[in-house]
Amino acid sequence: MSERVVLAYSGGLDTSVAIPYLAEQIGAEIVAVAVDVGQGGENLDVVRQRALDCGAVEAEVVDARDEFAADYCLPAIRANALYMDRYPLVSALSRPLIVTHLVAAARRHGGTIVSHGCTGKGNDQVRFEVGLGALAPDLKIVAPARDFAWTRDRAIAYAEERGLPIDVTRRSPYSVDQNLWGRAVETGFLEDIWNGPVEDLYSYTADPAEPRDADEVVITFDAGVPVALDGETVTPYQAIVELNRRAGAQGVGRLDMVEDRLVGIKSREVYEAPGAIALITAHQELEAVTVERDLARFKRGVDQRWGELVYDGLWFSPLKKALDAFVDDAQQQVSGEVRLTLHGGRAVVTGRRSEASLYDFGMATYDTGDTFDQSLARGFVQLWGLPSRMAVARDARLGGY
Amino acid sequence: MSERVVLAYSGGLDTSVAIPYLAEQIGAEIVAVAVDVGQGGENLDVVRQRALDCGAVEAEVVDARDEFAADYCLPAIRANALYMDRYPLVSALSRPLIVTHLVAAARRHGGTIVSHGCTGKGNDQVRFEVGLGALAPDLKIVAPARDFAWTRDRAIAYAEERGLPIDVTRRSPYSVDQNLWGRAVETGFLEDIWNGPVEDLYSYTADPAEPRDADEVVITFDAGVPVALDGETVTPYQAIVELNRRAGAQGVGRLDMVEDRLVGIKSREVYEAPGAIALITAHQELEAVTVERDLARFKRGVDQRWGELVYDGLWFSPLKKALDAFVDDAQQQVSGEVRLTLHGGRAVVTGRRSEASLYDFGMATYDTGDTFDQSLARGFVQLWGLPSRMAVARDARLGGY
Amino acid sequence: MSERVVLAYSGGLDTSVAIPYLAEQIGAEIVAVAVDVGQGGENLDVVRQRALDCGAVEAEVVDARDEFAADYCLPAIRANALYMDRYPLVSALSRPLIVTHLVAAARRHGGTIVSHGCTGKGNDQVRFEVGLGALAPDLKIVAPARDFAWTRDRAIAYAEERGLPIDVTRRSPYSVDQNLWGRAVETGFLEDIWNGPVEDLYSYTADPAEPRDADEVVITFDAGVPVALDGETVTPYQAIVELNRRAGAQGVGRLDMVEDRLVGIKSREVYEAPGAIALITAHQELEAVTVERDLARFKRGVDQRWGELVYDGLWFSPLKKALDAFVDDAQQQVSGEVRLTLHGGRAVVTGRRSEASLYDFGMATYDTGDTFDQSLARGFVQLWGLPSRMAVARDARLGGY
Amino acid sequence: MSERVVLAYSGGLDTSVAIPYLAEQIGAEIVAVAVDVGQGGENLDVVRQRALDCGAVEAEVVDARDEFAADYCLPAIRANALYMDRYPLVSALSRPLIVTHLVAAARRHGGTIVSHGCTGKGNDQVRFEVGLGALAPDLKIVAPARDFAWTRDRAIAYAEERGLPIDVTRRSPYSVDQNLWGRAVETGFLEDIWNGPVEDLYSYTADPAEPRDADEVVITFDAGVPVALDGETVTPYQAIVELNRRAGAQGVGRLDMVEDRLVGIKSREVYEAPGAIALITAHQELEAVTVERDLARFKRGVDQRWGELVYDGLWFSPLKKALDAFVDDAQQQVSGEVRLTLHGGRAVVTGRRSEASLYDFGMATYDTGDTFDQSLARGFVQLWGLPSRMAVARDARLGGY
Repeated sequence: MSERVVLAYSGGLDTSVAIPYLAEQIGAEIVAVAVDVGQGGENLDVVRQRALDCGAVEAEVVDARDEFAADYCLPAIRANALYMDRYPLVSALSRPLIVTHLVAAARRHGGTIVSHGCTGKGNDQVRFEVGLGALAPDLKIVAPARDFAWTRDRAIAYAEERGLPIDVTRRSPYSVDQNLWGRAVETGFLEDIWNGPVEDLYSYTADPAEPRDADEVVITFDAGVPVALDGETVTPYQAIVELNRRAGAQGVGRLDMVEDRLVGIKSREVYEAPGAIALITAHQELEAVTVERDLARFKRGVDQRWGELVYDGLWFSPLKKALDAFVDDAQQQVSGEVRLTLHGGRAVVTGRRSEASLYDFGMATYDTGDTFDQSLARGFVQLWGLPSRMAVARDARLGGY
Repeated sequence: MSERVVLAYSGGLDTSVAIPYLAEQIGAEIVAVAVDVGQGGENLDVVRQRALDCGAVEAEVVDARDEFAADYCLPAIRANALYMDRYPLVSALSRPLIVTHLVAAARRHGGTIVSHGCTGKGNDQVRFEVGLGALAPDLKIVAPARDFAWTRDRAIAYAEERGLPIDVTRRSPYSVDQNLWGRAVETGFLEDIWNGPVEDLYSYTADPAEPRDADEVVITFDAGVPVALDGETVTPYQAIVELNRRAGAQGVGRLDMVEDRLVGIKSREVYEAPGAIALITAHQELEAVTVERDLARFKRGVDQRWGELVYDGLWFSPLKKALDAFVDDAQQQVSGEVRLTLHGGRAVVTGRRSEASLYDFGMATYDTGDTFDQSLARGFVQLWGLPSRMAVARDARLGGY
Repeated sequence: MSERVVLAYSGGLDTSVAIPYLAEQIGAEIVAVAVDVGQGGENLDVVRQRALDCGAVEAEVVDARDEFAADYCLPAIRANALYMDRYPLVSALSRPLIVTHLVAAARRHGGTIVSHGCTGKGNDQVRFEVGLGALAPDLKIVAPARDFAWTRDRAIAYAEERGLPIDVTRRSPYSVDQNLWGRAVETGFLEDIWNGPVEDLYSYTADPAEPRDADEVVITFDAGVPVALDGETVTPYQAIVELNRRAGAQGVGRLDMVEDRLVGIKSREVYEAPGAIALITAHQELEAVTVERDLARFKRGVDQRWGELVYDGLWFSPLKKALDAFVDDAQQQVSGEVRLTLHGGRAVVTGRRSEASLYDFGMATYDTGDTFDQSLARGFVQLWGLPSRMAVARDARLGGY
Repeated sequence: MSERVVLAYSGGLDTSVAIPYLAEQIGAEIVAVAVDVGQGGENLDVVRQRALDCGAVEAEVVDARDEFAADYCLPAIRANALYMDRYPLVSALSRPLIVTHLVAAARRHGGTIVSHGCTGKGNDQVRFEVGLGALAPDLKIVAPARDFAWTRDRAIAYAEERGLPIDVTRRSPYSVDQNLWGRAVETGFLEDIWNGPVEDLYSYTADPAEPRDADEVVITFDAGVPVALDGETVTPYQAIVELNRRAGAQGVGRLDMVEDRLVGIKSREVYEAPGAIALITAHQELEAVTVERDLARFKRGVDQRWGELVYDGLWFSPLKKALDAFVDDAQQQVSGEVRLTLHGGRAVVTGRRSEASLYDFGMATYDTGDTFDQSLARGFVQLWGLPSRMAVARDARLGGY
């Protein structure tokens, strides 16, 4: 019996072409697996049929939308995950999820090889292969675009030659990866980093410069998890879908940046992540209200490292797991409500309230009701500054520096 | 001869009242020093005369605007100084500068005591006193608001009783501190953190929701320092003034946050810092283009600590100085141009170019001209993921976890 | 009814004198609480009786030795807690434990005030009072040595005057704090930091320079917890006692250092902690074998912060708790055996073995059986060095620097 | 004209065999370069002649001992560079130095290829190749052991077959790398990590268990640099040589550890570094006396990262350079004397004195002369603990956790 290749299938040109090509090259049967992570676009039954039409012996669609929201996007909210302080890890979050489903499919269908469509200069190959190596080190991996040096032109020629059911004429000028958590766009003219993006690039967000009325939303969190919007209980998936819609309609969440890839190069990326940006903005402010200062300061470093690890394909690493334990503990009191105005491309917090608030009106107020004992300050200030004072005196005594 | 008190004088109610009060209480002569850090508002000659009218034996105005821009705001740009990822340290930056001028004035005028108007529950008392203790440990410090428990009502009564030349009827409901780098506002109704800010609070920024045409500016940096706007050479002071004007006109730089004070409480603050936010936004993106990845990742932690130290009143500390040395080295190649669209409250980078760019078109492009050797990727991916792979295999072997 | 003061009672001069003094000054009844944290020395029933003889209305001895070992010393092992990379936090660990028992005693005996014998320039006042403030903010605190400016001479005079049952003639030249985890010594002649310690200072450790035969011990850990010595199951308390004895007999664990106190000054300290040093040494090496590289690197920073927090009196802080969650997760696989040679003041690891080892003979060996695929290295090396290579080339191109 | 290969030549079997082998395989001329980094052993003129006898067209010896001490070992002292808190980076420090001399030799001799003897599973290939890529990206690299899969047996057979002038019968069971800074040993029986090291492994250090008289040395530092021993001025090279001798004679500086290699595996290593350990021990204590607390705490993280970067082959990286700037600033006041007792394998500080000391007798003493104002403590303690107190109260109010 021939080997079976489990292919991460998107329905697009590259992975469609991979079906007959891998079958030939390896002499293997192809099992196509399309994972629904909320990418929208084509009906996934159509996608599934296309895989079969291209020669797959099996084709599956896995609905992983709720799982993606709950187990991948939520931890990102709780860690305020913004790579380079900006990018909410759209593709980086979906890859480990897809990996788990590829492994499950390989087990179900007797696959011994896994295949993905990534090139050899991007981050996603790392995320796929480090994840696969961790969860299923016995599976071999083949990446046609990288290992057989496929290019887009070669794929088109192959598709036409074989009469594959792919409409290569509808080819978009943009290379896009999108899911529930956001959308990433690359394209030739953006490779000149002096060129600005054009409106046409965007699909999740309306033009923020367009005049329109503001929207206001109250997000309720429980232990760092969004559980209600304007008082209506929502699942994580619903929270993200709804905020993608409402924040997207106000142009919130567009990003244009030069980014440090794991493989050692810098690349230009344009992202849209309206729901992610709205949720993280609200979450950060609720942390400001409910998390103690030293914990908040240290957590900033933890959040940064968490984002780097996930960006760098190390979702399944022991460090990621230990950081999750830290974050989990730090979120226990991050409960309450944040009011957000969505308008003109901005998500702005205008109010916050929480049973678990560490903001104490009596301590903070300058008006009647002040409970802060100002007489404590002098001793504090003196001892707080003592080490600096002694060091500066020493430096002065030793003649400058 | 009686002792002399050098008083940090703003021209406002509290420090005006302090002149006769301290003179009486301590039996000392008062030397009033007003430092111009770009706070605008009243003519400082008027302020100077008021000090004399209140009984000061000497009154000086120090024009420190260029010094403030060059020696305090610029380092903040280079360290992307945003306390809690948001607040650009408006008041925190001016305090150490004022301290140096108070000490100089004390030396000039034979002062043995320094006085400031801060309360005992804010950050500024710490910044003043830690700075004074470091630079001039021989000077005594008196803070009437804290040490004699003055309140605003008591100050008004005293002013009226003594017929001091202060118009207490024009009293603003807002407590404001402002300078070249931004403006901080506190007020009673914001002490309920569920209340949103009102338009009336703002003075450096126009309403971002108001429809208007976008503005576009190109900022040129040399080693992390803004040196030109739209090709016109500017001093640091001019860069900030001009961007306050242009970014402020587009509603850029408003902040509303709950913040961790050094004295251990959380407080609600509203800030405006249009120029600061525009400059830091541009600077961060130019770093993304010109700073190597590992350095950039580490610098994020350095930037955070720099901001915390300055917020916490430790401007003169040895750690701050060592961090400056790090930042200084890291800025050597942060030169080039960033194009920014200012509109609707947002400062958005749309282009960047630099002789020192580490973005390499050949390495990044997916089109013709690709110089990245994809065959290197497999070995990299395998060894990159090796430690995680071994750990996950171990965990699986030992039965879960 | 008069108020009751719960006094942390050691049986020594200062806290004995405090009994009648506080009773008088405050007009309160004194409840003396002596907590056994393995400090050894006098029989605690004698200590208890002395409190009563000095006038306490109640006196209790709490045996907290197992609790101290399990809930305070063990977490310190798991976090490799060495303040300034050296000091295993002897006193710092016992203070929060004593605090919990003082609070419990206050609740039992209707106490409204808590008292301790610390001065105003040490760390322990902070540890007591921050802990008390966290657990029982309603209790008032009085510290006679600090608040009434007691000195040793004044205490002796008072004791003699009142005929208190304390032998003031046996006065040691050393100021000592000791418990299960170690022993701290301060004394006048060590305040000249050029003076070396003398043999007479030490009590937990024999002279390491004395010739004797080496001892060898195998310590078994389970999830970071020592569970057996030479194959014999032990409780945490037994492990520490036994290693204090065996490592102490070999002179292991002496420390002489200048240390940064929380109150802002540097002080000279001499410590002995034979069991602590032996256990942490073994634990660190078992982590080297069982903990994945990235996790190990990050944990070093967590361990440092954990030690600083505990040293700084923040045992009950939210950050400490979140770090514990991180450490707990990181210890899950820290199981196995470490063989230690104890000799001449050194605890040296000579062997380690573990089911959970990440050391892989096949990957590591240069002999027959090598399973490492060296062909992967070239790609790894190239991409690993790519960012540096591009940056150095850029720097060279732009003319040096 | 044929290409020229510049070969990093040690005089040993592997690199001797590489001379004729590479000449044949590549059809190139071989230029052998032996860099003296204080490795001792054979006379380097003999080594040079052997290269010629093996067929090299040119052979050079570069005396880099002073350069190695001053430019590579000194920065390691100032950064207290101990990888995994223990290993003083012996081999890791010499590789970038050797790289600079290989590049210089290639420029002098018209070389276009550089060759080294490292395998594909160690760290040194990375250090050589990342360094070469940074300094001379135009040079090609060939590593026979890795790229042509050479083994020791194959090398011996080849040497015998060709009659190369190498005595293969004197083959040591140990694989050794040694230089001025220390010595690294690997060998088959240590690959079982339960086996302890044997005395025979060591060459820089005497048996610490052997009874002998203690040695005492006073090391003088100037800005973190050792400048005198027992009052005699020394160069950095002399300081290290002399302390290798004296500390080595007392058995100081042996290390036995499992270490995380950059290529992702753990390996067992035995090191000897008597001078390095003595110098770093003294330097750390002088920092404890002269460096302010916050700077010292932050520097610990900088030191760790510095060591990791150098271990990981990133000596020429921008981050390493920026960390150097930080360390340089932090060392300005690290001047003074440290007295060290060397005995029984231990280097123990017994005294320290410094003009730049931040230890203040008056602040520290509990005896007459105390200048610390204890009345400041209460305010400090209260505000220091305030955030924790509020958080614990909140947690209690919300019902546990």
